[in-house]
This record gives sequence, structure tokens and C-alpha cells, in this order.
Amino acid sequence: MESSKKKKTAIEPTREQDYPEWYQQVIKAADLAENSPVRGCMVIKPWGYSLWENIQQNMDKMFKDTGHTNAYFPLFIPVSYLEKEAEHVEGFAKECAVVTHSRLVPGEDGKLVPASPLEEPLIVRPTSETIIGEMYARWVQSYRDLPILINQWANVVRWEMRTRLFLRTAEFLWQEGHTAHATEAEAVEETEKMLEVYRVFAEEYMAMPVITGLKTEGEKFPGAVNTYCIEAMMQDRKALQAGTSHFLGQNFSKASGIKFLSESGVQEYAWTTSWGTSTRLIGGMIMTHSDDDGLVLPPRLAPLHVIILPVLHDESAKNSVLEYCESLKKEIAAKTYAGREVRVDIDKRDLRGGEKMWGWVKKGVPLRVEVGPRDIAKDSLFVARRDTGEKKPVSREEFVANLPALLQEIQDNLFARAKKYRDENSAEITNKEDFYAYFTPKNEKKPEMHGGFAFADYDGSEEVEDMLRKDLKVTVRCIPLEGGKPKGDKCIFTGNPAKYRAVFAKSY
Amino acid sequence: MESSKKKKTAIEPTREQDYPEWYQQVIKAADLAENSPVRGCMVIKPWGYSLWENIQQNMDKMFKDTGHTNAYFPLFIPVSYLEKEAEHVEGFAKECAVVTHSRLVPGEDGKLVPASPLEEPLIVRPTSETIIGEMYARWVQSYRDLPILINQWANVVRWEMRTRLFLRTAEFLWQEGHTAHATEAEAVEETEKMLEVYRVFAEEYMAMPVITGLKTEGEKFPGAVNTYCIEAMMQDRKALQAGTSHFLGQNFSKASGIKFLSESGVQEYAWTTSWGTSTRLIGGMIMTHSDDDGLVLPPRLAPLHVIILPVLHDESAKNSVLEYCESLKKEIAAKTYAGREVRVDIDKRDLRGGEKMWGWVKKGVPLRVEVGPRDIAKDSLFVARRDTGEKKPVSREEFVANLPALLQEIQDNLFARAKKYRDENSAEITNKEDFYAYFTPKNEKKPEMHGGFAFADYDGSEEVEDMLRKDLKVTVRCIPLEGGKPKGDKCIFTGNPAKYRAVFAKSY
Repeated sequence: MESSKKKKTAIEPTREQDYPEWYQQVIKAADLAENSPVRGCMVIKPWGYSLWENIQQNMDKMFKDTGHTNAYFPLFIPVSYLEKEAEHVEGFAKECAVVTHSRLVPGEDGKLVPASPLEEPLIVRPTSETIIGEMYARWVQSYRDLPILINQWANVVRWEMRTRLFLRTAEFLWQEGHTAHATEAEAVEETEKMLEVYRVFAEEYMAMPVITGLKTEGEKFPGAVNTYCIEAMMQDRKALQAGTSHFLGQNFSKASGIKFLSESGVQEYAWTTSWGTSTRLIGGMIMTHSDDDGLVLPPRLAPLHVIILPVLHDESAKNSVLEYCESLKKEIAAKTYAGREVRVDIDKRDLRGGEKMWGWVKKGVPLRVEVGPRDIAKDSLFVARRDTGEKKPVSREEFVANLPALLQEIQDNLFARAKKYRDENSAEITNKEDFYAYFTPKNEKKPEMHGGFAFADYDGSEEVEDMLRKDLKVTVRCIPLEGGKPKGDKCIFTGNPAKYRAVFAKSY
Repeated sequence: MESSKKKKTAIEPTREQDYPEWYQQVIKAADLAENSPVRGCMVIKPWGYSLWENIQQNMDKMFKDTGHTNAYFPLFIPVSYLEKEAEHVEGFAKECAVVTHSRLVPGEDGKLVPASPLEEPLIVRPTSETIIGEMYARWVQSYRDLPILINQWANVVRWEMRTRLFLRTAEFLWQEGHTAHATEAEAVEETEKMLEVYRVFAEEYMAMPVITGLKTEGEKFPGAVNTYCIEAMMQDRKALQAGTSHFLGQNFSKASGIKFLSESGVQEYAWTTSWGTSTRLIGGMIMTHSDDDGLVLPPRLAPLHVIILPVLHDESAKNSVLEYCESLKKEIAAKTYAGREVRVDIDKRDLRGGEKMWGWVKKGVPLRVEVGPRDIAKDSLFVARRDTGEKKPVSREEFVANLPALLQEIQDNLFARAKKYRDENSAEITNKEDFYAYFTPKNEKKPEMHGGFAFADYDGSEEVEDMLRKDLKVTVRCIPLEGGKPKGDKCIFTGNPAKYRAVFAKSY
């Protein structure tokens, strides 16, 4: 039993008690997703999938506004394609779904067994650089055919051993942009432009503050020259890589043969980029904002902005309450927020008021509006904010008029709160001893509640990275684009000349 | 060489000369899609993919308006799941992608070979009844958990031997609705409701007239009690099955164990349905409307409604022409058509006027607007309709004011034209001799240009169906929902009592 001092929460355990389990329970209570019987593959349930639809719609618009179009490439990649880029194959061959047959026939015991072996095995795409590169090589002859600016919304498969809903699953949904350019400068510009799209999306839509930076050699995408990333802090102070944008140089264009006749008449290899975000964003959103009562959603991406809860226990007033709610719903739905219509619904289910209310708390809807016979008499609504827990009566007129501003206030509050949390859990560290202390749990029972983001000068060596990974399970999250230059002269670990000021953290 | 009498066309060969090749060339000229190096898998290029995006957006709204939500289920299906439903496994085991390993390692010659065999092979979903049924069985306990009304947008794989872009490919994109209900009547109602959604979509969005009907035993979905379908006629007079809605009875709920406690306290199996349409719709749209100059698109689904073509050969007038076009574009983009904004662009490329114009003809844009210095002086536009080929000057004011009506006129004209073509190529047939003559090519060089839809009474036997398939490559397309009762007493093939009046045709 809980100690009597403790406030009863809708989610058990709490974040403090057991963060990983809290995360699973938040997902379950909000009915977002669940594990499927297919190893490592999740089922995204309607409430979770509508988060993905909102992510897609908003991000897709940003891609189109920056000149990209969508297309679709094959699910399968011939093994020989994967082999074309040495680092790439190294990175993906270890965990991939291999298709070897094209038919099933009854075996000796009557059970189906694979038949008709393929001449060449195929893998289910873990990412599509090689198959898309092959197509670009066919499409590009002259500099006039460049740039190619294409994005794909698709499913991909990486045979991960340890999976967690949204954060790491064998199959996941994502978008992968693949572009080809005539010059290096243009490709670098594209890589940085898409990183900026990701930053804006994370901060303005997900209300999730991120650090933009460059990955180190050991952490970059297999085959990339440079990997840019956005890194966010979760409420267990671990880092989550939420999106990556890769400058691929000419590595993949050489592997795939993307050549063009330049304006000056010379055969050149194109410069390519790729960039991706995935359903992992949903995991990041959950872990950034949710609390011990369940999911908390930023209004920009919430499937519903407002849930109206009619108080129906007085049978004689039932019809008039429902009528009032319908007219309120109509009035609210006519408003717009952030350029789209306000999403509102009425929960007419025959459930106890508390059960109904808690259901929507756990689903993270930003605003709950209770309407009972007494409220109608006063033309007043009882409004509850999910982010602050504040509950108060508001006149209907004021509520409706102020709704878009209130939703933005909630959006801004979530961002400010997450940023404050991150900043309070970041430290500037100037010596190895402090660094090790920072990442060493003081309380063995709450190992997750220590550490955070450590900013420190280091020599950029793989030796330091290997040591920290081994000793502390800490990695360089990125060399920040702003503030990545060392503050001092020396690496705090080796005393060698400092090369970067990096962000170090434990991570997902 | 062409005969001098013949009009030069943008697509060669013409429909009359070689229909299947004409189809490939229309796709190529419009840059819609192409074959990939992965056997049977296509690449959907940006212009083709934006057709799919428009199909998705509009159809998805229709699904949501009828109470459905989207979700996402695993790409992989354990072989043992497929085996649960006898007819189902029969239908899909013959051609499927089988995943047998989860890793690649270098073999003796250094090439990668599959490693880490799976305990149980998985297939890439050819359709998702079995995996979704497994999940529904977990979610449903009581009648209160029903109905479940879920749709999934996804890719599926069927290892087809002969493939054709959009019409039949190993991997294709589709939507699959899967619903579960407490009563048979409700499930049948759902099946018919979604068929009606498909009919409305085909006719009102794609401008493609369809016959709604029931499949015969031999043609229905493996595992279904009944398969409803929409059937359209292409310009080679062959039928295209464009969408299917299956009443699955309790077959899959028994196979997957979807049981619930009914209101009266009895354990019952749920009644399920499934319904799907795919990228095949794009093939149907191409073959219904396009002509010997290339693609013709219905405005409701066209990626662009209007392309503005500035006449730029007079260098001194270039800036003023472009300025005029920009202001025209802005004015057009502010209009709405069918509840969405009018889609307009300017082609500023430095190309010869004819080349530029023909490019847009072949891409099927409904309206082309030429703007030159002389037009500007008169505030007049030179407007060309893709559907009729009509070209004439129109005052800017009139064009803009009338644009939504003109787009709808084009939409209606395409539908009327396609319906006329279908009706002119349909025949009521009352004896076997006429039936065989109808489907026997009179001219060996133009075998495709004969036949059409034959309506005839038959006894509903598989013997007749087998005979027609063997003798004429003709199948029963459906028993129409309207007019499916026999007109006479006897089967025109056997003299047995007539059971149905069916639509017979050759088909894709």
C-alpha cells in the first residue's frame, strides 16, 4: 500500500518510483499502442495513430514548403545493393529481416514451409539510401536534373533485440528525405535546412526543446560524412535522439553511380543527403510532458483539444444538458487554432463522472469542460487544464473567445516547463572527477534520477568516448552547433588539447 | 511511319494500335511511376504519388465521416496465423514474401548470406485479417467493446508473376478496413456501407462509373462469406475490379477467437468485415480518361488544376509577363473547388513553348492558361481544356470567377463521357452463340477492341464459369446489386433454371 502522505496518482508506479515502468503504464492508460505477438513489432492504436497523423500532416507541410515532394520506393532491397557502401552494410547487416522465399507449401507434418527460394535474398528496408540511390542514378544525367528533393513516408525494419514501444521497435513508421545536388555547398545547406525544420517541429509543435549538433565519428550514420541531430532531455534526464539529418558527401552517389554532366561539361558525382524522423517522436513527446496522472499532450498535436463532459446524473435535465453541449461543440469547432480547426468532442458515455474524467486526464487532452444543469443556468463552464491541473468556472462567452489564446498558452507553458527542466538538469563540468560524480548514482534505488546533460571540453578522441561508454554508459550526444567550441584549452579527461565542447549524457 | 491521314499524337502507339503499350507510354510520358530493379516492385514518382495523396486525403475523410479511425498493425504475419483460416491460406500461401532470417554475414566468397534463422518464418502481409483478428481477440471481451471500426493505410506484398504498373505489382499501397460487430445484420450493413463509399469515391472523385455487385463463389475473397465489388470498364472494354468489401461472417472471428459476452450474457463470436482499395485505382483512373495525347485527370484528384504558361520569348516583356502571372496565380489560389483550395502553378522554365505545353498535356492538368504580352494588354487569357481539347481566349475576370464551375464541368464531362463509353459497349445477351461471338475478336490485329460488358442470365454454376474462362478468358465480374435477377427463366449456356443476371467481361 501507498504511504498515506503520498498523493494518489492515476499512473502507478510514478516517475520517481520506476521511470521505465511509468512510461509503459502511461502508454497503456492512454491506449496509445501495445506490443504485438510479432516479435518487436508494435500495434499503434487509434489514439496513438492520430498523434502520428498530426505529426505527418504538420511536418509534411513543412517539407513541401521547403520545396520537397513525396514519392514511394520499394520495401525490399537486394542484398547486393546493401554491399555497395562499406560502412552502410556494416551498420545494417547485423539486424535485418531477410526474405529468402516466395511461397509456402505444406511440409511433411502438414505445416507450411518456405518454398521457391529467391535467386538473390532481399532485405526489408532498414533505410533506403541504396535503393533510392539506384533510382536517382537512372534519373540524373545532367546538372539540369538536379537537385532532386524527395521525401518518403514509409515503414522500415531493424531487427532490434531489446524493444520499447515507440522508442525502439523492429518495425517503425518514419519519413526519410533523400536529396541529390550538384554541389557540396548546396547539399550541406540542405542538410542544415532540414535539421532546422526538425528543430522548429520539435520545439514549436511538440513543445520539446532540443539541442542541435553534430554527431561524433563513432555515433554518426553508417556511410555519412556528417550526421546532424536534435537531442532532447526526457524526465529521467536521459537524452533522446529525436531526428537526424545526414550529409552523405559523394559516398552514396559513388556507390550507386549518381553521375551528371556539369554545366561546364564534366562528369561529376552528385552530393547527397538524407534525413529522418520516426514514430520515436511520439515516445519523446510522452516522456517530455507526461506526469504521474498520465499523458500530457501539446495542443498543436493533440487529437482533441477540448473534451466536453456533460454531467448527466439528473435524468430530467439530461436532454437540455446534451443540447447545450452540442451547441457548445459547434461553437468551439468553428474556431481555429494554429491555422487548423479546433478539435472538440463530447463524451456522452454512460459512465460515472470520475471514471469518465480520469479517462481523459490519462489520454492527455489539453482542456476538459464540464457542463451540468447548474452551469447552464449561469451560462458558465467548469474548465480544467491538463498541463497545470487548474480547474475553474469560466463564462461560456469568455472561454470560446479566448480558446485559441488559451491553447497557445498551454503550448508555450509546456515548452517553457520542459526547457526549465532541461536547463536545471544541465551542468558545465570542468574536471573528470566531477564528471564521474555527476553520472554516478548517489542513491542506488533511484539510479535514473541523477545526471543529466553534461557540457564539457574534450579532445574528440574515440578513446575518451569508449571509456565513458564503458565506465558510465555515457555518450557524446552531439557537438552543439552553438557553443561547440571548447571553453578551455584542455580535454578534461586526458589533458590533451581540447577539440570540442560536447554534450554528454546517458541516452535511449 | 504514320499514314499521312493520321493525326500526330503525343503518345505512340495509340490506344487503337496497342492498348497495353499505350498504357505504359502514358505513365512514362506523365512521369507517374516506373519499374524498379526489385522484381515486381514499382517506384511511384512524385506526380503519381501526389495522385495517391489526393486519393488518400479524400477517401480518408469519407472513412472518418462514417465513424472509422486509423491504426497500424505489424508488417509481418507468423505463418501459423495464416494457417488458421483454410480458404485464406489457400489463397495467399502460393505467392508471398517469406522472411526466414534476421541477419546477414559474409559467406565463403565474401558475399553476404542469410544467418540467424527465425524460429518461425514470417510472411510480409498480403492482407491483414489474421494479425488484426489476433489483436481484436485481445481487445474484445464484451458487447460494449463492439463495434471496432478501424482502417489501416499500408503497403502489402503478393508475389505476382506478371506485373503491370499500378494494376498488379508485387508490393502495392492500399487501405484495408477491418471491423468487428456484435450482430450479423450490423456487419452486413457495414460491408454495404463501405461499398457505397467506394462507389461514391469512384464516381464522384475519380469520375469513373462503376457497377456495384457481388462476386461469385469462385471469385470472392479467400475466407469471405460474400465479396462485394465495384467494377469499371477501361477503354479496351476490359473490366477492372476497383475495390472490394467483404462480409466475413464468423469465419475469421472463429479462426482468431474474437469472442464476446453478449448483452444477454452469452459467449458469441463477433461478425467481421474487411474492405480495401489500392494504388490500382490510379491505373483505373489512367485507363478510364486518358487519350492518345496522354494522361487526362479528373479535377477532384489532379495534383494541379491550372498550369499557367507565361509566353516569354519577348525578352523586354518577360518581367511584366511574369508579374502578371504571379498576380493571376495568387488570385486563382484564393478560390476553392470542392471544399479545397484550387491548385495552381506557373511553369517558368526556359523551354520552347510547344515543348512546355505538351509536357502539361501529357501530365493531364485539366486547364492550361497561356499568358503573353498581347493577352495582358487585353486582360485576356488563352485557356485550353485538357478533356475536350477546346482552346479559346477568356477574359481574366470571367475565367477566375467561373473557375470552380468550370472544374466541376470538366469533372462531370469526364464522368458522362466514361459512362457513355461503358453503356455503348455493354450488351444484353440472350443466347450462347451471341455471347461467344461478342467475345470473339473479329479482327485478329485488334483483339482488344471487341467485347465489353455482357449482361446475361446464367445458372450460377462453377461449370459455366470454368467454361467461359477456358474458352473466352471471360469471367463473371459480378452479380449486380441492381438488376441481378434473371430476366428470363433459363441459363443461356446450359438451359438450366437461371439464377442470376450477371455482368460478364474480360478483365485485368
